[in-house]
Amino acid sequence: MPNRQSQPHATPPSSAGSLDALIAPDSVAVIGASQDPSRIGGRPIRYMREAGFTGAIYPVNPKRAHVQGLPSYADIGMVPGQVDLAIIAVPAPKVADVLDACVKKNVKAAVIYSAGFAEIDKEGQRRQDAIREVALDSGIRVLGPNCLGVYNSDRGLFATFSTTLESRFPHPGPISLVSQSGAYASHLSLLATQRGMGIRYWLTTGNEADITVSECIEWMADREEVSVIMAYAEGINAPDALVRALEKARARRKPVVFMKVGTSAAGAQAARAHTASTAGLDSVCDAILRQYGAFRARTTEEMLDIAYVASFGTLPRSRRVALLTISGGVGVQMADAASQAELDVAPMREEAQTQLKRDLPFASPRNPVDITAQAFNNINLISENLNTILADDRYDSVVAFFTYVACADGMVEPIRESLRAAKLKHPDCLFALSIVGPRQVIESYEAAGCPVFEDPTRAVRAVAAMATIREWLDEPASLASDARSPGRALQSGQLGARDATSILAAAGIPLTAPASLTAREGEPAVEGIDVIVGVVRDVTFGPIVTIRLGGPVAEVLGDISMRRVPFDEPEAHRMIRELKSFPLLAGREERSVSDSGTGRCPDFDLPALAAALARLSEFAAGTPNLERLQLDPLRVFPNHGGVIALNAVIVGT
Amino acid sequence: MPNRQSQPHATPPSSAGSLDALIAPDSVAVIGASQDPSRIGGRPIRYMREAGFTGAIYPVNPKRAHVQGLPSYADIGMVPGQVDLAIIAVPAPKVADVLDACVKKNVKAAVIYSAGFAEIDKEGQRRQDAIREVALDSGIRVLGPNCLGVYNSDRGLFATFSTTLESRFPHPGPISLVSQSGAYASHLSLLATQRGMGIRYWLTTGNEADITVSECIEWMADREEVSVIMAYAEGINAPDALVRALEKARARRKPVVFMKVGTSAAGAQAARAHTASTAGLDSVCDAILRQYGAFRARTTEEMLDIAYVASFGTLPRSRRVALLTISGGVGVQMADAASQAELDVAPMREEAQTQLKRDLPFASPRNPVDITAQAFNNINLISENLNTILADDRYDSVVAFFTYVACADGMVEPIRESLRAAKLKHPDCLFALSIVGPRQVIESYEAAGCPVFEDPTRAVRAVAAMATIREWLDEPASLASDARSPGRALQSGQLGARDATSILAAAGIPLTAPASLTAREGEPAVEGIDVIVGVVRDVTFGPIVTIRLGGPVAEVLGDISMRRVPFDEPEAHRMIRELKSFPLLAGREERSVSDSGTGRCPDFDLPALAAALARLSEFAAGTPNLERLQLDPLRVFPNHGGVIALNAVIVGT
Repeated sequence: MPNRQSQPHATPPSSAGSLDALIAPDSVAVIGASQDPSRIGGRPIRYMREAGFTGAIYPVNPKRAHVQGLPSYADIGMVPGQVDLAIIAVPAPKVADVLDACVKKNVKAAVIYSAGFAEIDKEGQRRQDAIREVALDSGIRVLGPNCLGVYNSDRGLFATFSTTLESRFPHPGPISLVSQSGAYASHLSLLATQRGMGIRYWLTTGNEADITVSECIEWMADREEVSVIMAYAEGINAPDALVRALEKARARRKPVVFMKVGTSAAGAQAARAHTASTAGLDSVCDAILRQYGAFRARTTEEMLDIAYVASFGTLPRSRRVALLTISGGVGVQMADAASQAELDVAPMREEAQTQLKRDLPFASPRNPVDITAQAFNNINLISENLNTILADDRYDSVVAFFTYVACADGMVEPIRESLRAAKLKHPDCLFALSIVGPRQVIESYEAAGCPVFEDPTRAVRAVAAMATIREWLDEPASLASDARSPGRALQSGQLGARDATSILAAAGIPLTAPASLTAREGEPAVEGIDVIVGVVRDVTFGPIVTIRLGGPVAEVLGDISMRRVPFDEPEAHRMIRELKSFPLLAGREERSVSDSGTGRCPDFDLPALAAALARLSEFAAGTPNLERLQLDPLRVFPNHGGVIALNAVIVGT
Repeated sequence: MPNRQSQPHATPPSSAGSLDALIAPDSVAVIGASQDPSRIGGRPIRYMREAGFTGAIYPVNPKRAHVQGLPSYADIGMVPGQVDLAIIAVPAPKVADVLDACVKKNVKAAVIYSAGFAEIDKEGQRRQDAIREVALDSGIRVLGPNCLGVYNSDRGLFATFSTTLESRFPHPGPISLVSQSGAYASHLSLLATQRGMGIRYWLTTGNEADITVSECIEWMADREEVSVIMAYAEGINAPDALVRALEKARARRKPVVFMKVGTSAAGAQAARAHTASTAGLDSVCDAILRQYGAFRARTTEEMLDIAYVASFGTLPRSRRVALLTISGGVGVQMADAASQAELDVAPMREEAQTQLKRDLPFASPRNPVDITAQAFNNINLISENLNTILADDRYDSVVAFFTYVACADGMVEPIRESLRAAKLKHPDCLFALSIVGPRQVIESYEAAGCPVFEDPTRAVRAVAAMATIREWLDEPASLASDARSPGRALQSGQLGARDATSILAAAGIPLTAPASLTAREGEPAVEGIDVIVGVVRDVTFGPIVTIRLGGPVAEVLGDISMRRVPFDEPEAHRMIRELKSFPLLAGREERSVSDSGTGRCPDFDLPALAAALARLSEFAAGTPNLERLQLDPLRVFPNHGGVIALNAVIVGT
């Protein structure tokens, strides 16, 4: 991707293992070490010592014999032993010399805190390019510049000057985080720690002269002790590496919760000012994260909520959810939220409803199951109700709203033990709770295996996200026939009718002039349904296949679906189903979601459409100089009638 | 609205003042009083005494001489003095007799806690109808049955058995709350109190045998000490009263934050089970809340966030917002959230940008203004930056992300005083903060006039909601010519062409057979744009006018706009603008939001369309037996070409 701060990154070779020295070093030098533990060059020394980092720490500061009680060295070359990681906290103009000295010393990785590079001006850009060259030539791995560093909470390696660590050190849970923005990563680390979420590895990539967010994701995907990956980016600097990283995380069944900001014009403008990122078209990024199975979070709360629930390790096998509530009103809200999130609030089986009604005559037994506050008069009923609900394995998740009642005197233990027993009996079922109460009570519910939210809607949404992530992780990677080997280049400019016809024919798509098709007056006008299929070239991700329904309404409402090339037919089917207007393409069964199922919408030939999209994606992947392609319209016929392009524009660069 | 628990409510006369005895009584009897302060009949006595209620409390319990230390009476008739309010906590079958005794005693209002009415079975329905009759005949006002009562925190009147009051009593802020659901109202009260929000009046209406949510809203709108109204409903039992209440709240410029649940099929089903509410079409409710200026909250968090910010009393005059951040990454997020919420992230003026850049060379001065953490090295800069940003009154709101930094030692006072000074100088500007820190620090920022959120996105969304509420409060009430006086009834069944033509002609809409219009082959096909206009009859709100664009895509995507009848032309214009596909109807300027502004979309005659909608709304309002009307299509011509209906179906009941 072209951007202001560096040349486009070539696809690096797979990097598994090469970040080890950065994240799990045995020895750390701090260049620009400060005696003052509140300064940038002082904080990491203080943090690592407070957190019990067991490796060697070498302050480098020519003006002092000791720094914070440790022997100090005049330069990195004078450090006696091996240095795995160098922290560089010197002014930008001095960074290049320091980095050269690190290379001479055979340092394996460096973190550059210093600002004053590509985010500032052309001189800064030049300095940053120089860093990049040193990294590529020597093999030293560089994090930053203009970053807040890295931590590994399992080893007490807090190689960062983030002030959020002052109150408490994070503990090594199953979650890891990589972020372009250091301040935002600090904010997330603080909030996560306050919520009791353990962040194990934490990396901030800043200007990404060398190490990118994508590479960090791939490294995390390879680590057994990491089961949930959080990522934050303003621009994607290594698109192929991102795709590979996401594919690997999916193969390892590790949820990736990804926040990519800069979705609006104002936001994209702000992103450019912040880390010099040029965002590609946001909807393309959206499609690609979905295509490769990463869950895109839109807000900080959503990011944390989803990582939090994912860290409990249960991804429900289906979207069927049981809603349990002591407030009918909240039951209604949860049902609304569940439906909106496309969870299936399937009613309880008749026998279960009868059983519940027998236990609790005032209850609403259908689903949501409203046990009312009266259930707490006989606390054994909570356990019995749960057994009844779960008896036939109908549900793969349960969201229970207990609010403050679950924290009342005498309630905590019986409710928690009921939940613990249910979870032991149904380990694949996800139990999420909505509870208001003190932190230590919430932790005791968490210890029983249940994520806890204050807000019931957020609990429902997080559960829905888990079901979605499970579906995406279950999808096989796209098996597009490997048509990436460059095919014949196109001639430059717009192709003539004969060439276009033959190219489309090779992709299995007949191109016919519209005259022979158009219905005569008086005849039924619609034999097929028109879609518009295109290939556009995204600055970041290359050729993208798009589809939308014909007509201006679909266009102005932005109902368009897209995929990076190449992809196979199952992926094309998913792409088609994502259209909000999909019911118009699908058969009568799907059509019934609308009120006016007048039967005017037949079952169009979706297999032929999916095949056409997949073939086009392979053509686009194999044609390096394809600038754009548009089939407007591509007509899809009912039943097994196939597809025909009525008009085609194909342009070579 | 027909529903299971009672006959449709006739439009009651305006009730201002008639709830005073319920909410501000001087004397309260508790019928079914309990010595046990944790039981339903015991809690209100305990709460009122603990909270210092200064009126008389009369326990009524034939089995005891004293209850919780107070003299007890065998029945209500034996209470010595006047009783303003009776709390009834006896089993359902005894309620009718108790209520009769209250009427004899000249009690002015009653709260019925008891369950076992319309929510249970037909016998319960019969009991509830009897209560309703007593209320209508005698004038006693009844809250419930099946409710959690009422509180007035200003007078220590806690006439409720909600257990959420155990930890802390709410304080009398400017917010009041009415809710059908008692458990949900308790949950909201608890969360609001934990957030430091003061709830003054709190009412739960339960089955609404007499007093409805709508009437409570109207009563609150009349009270000077209430400036924000929160309302929760599962079904609307008094639609005309709701409209009148919302119109009054708008006239008094009091934001109404309304949560109406049961939006999904599963949720509506659950609502029926909970309070026997039959929800009308949810999209109709949506349209009506918007039409009369109430803000619809979708989640508990949104409800509380919006009421919280509204309680600070500043509704920004425009949508222009300045975003201030110490993290570039969060600045991007806030810009995205602001754009999505249709705030205007207008760039700072050049001079202001220059000034900011002079003060802080590392800052991004455009908007978001990223002052970076370095701004905190010279704390005076916060104040200077705020002055620079606000100098020319360009912005009517500011959202500042300071995270934990605003709570660090030595930071709180200077930042807070900078904000206080800025707020004093710009009292009409809304300052919202995103801060992570301890409660007492947050309260000190609140005391300086700034609402505080942990999450920056929620802060931005709440500010956007304030701007929207301001716009809605500024709208004049619809001035539809008062065509409610019933006009001529239609004949039953579908009208013939001649009748339809003359009815539409009277509404200023020509009806013409399509043959004379249709373009011949080879001519430009589109001279106008087709919309579909209808009148449907909602079970709750009566005739509703709807509009959408022609074609199946608009239909399947649900892009439809609607209004309750009657309404005037300005309201019709707002209705048209709400369509997501509005750019297709608007002129070139609006069209430019889409990428492919090919000029094929002319400036259609929106004034003629708005006039047609307003006239139809008056016709519908004046025609009592109109079952439905559909103009499919109504063609709108460019420029001043007017509208023509090409086909009309009008059906009388």
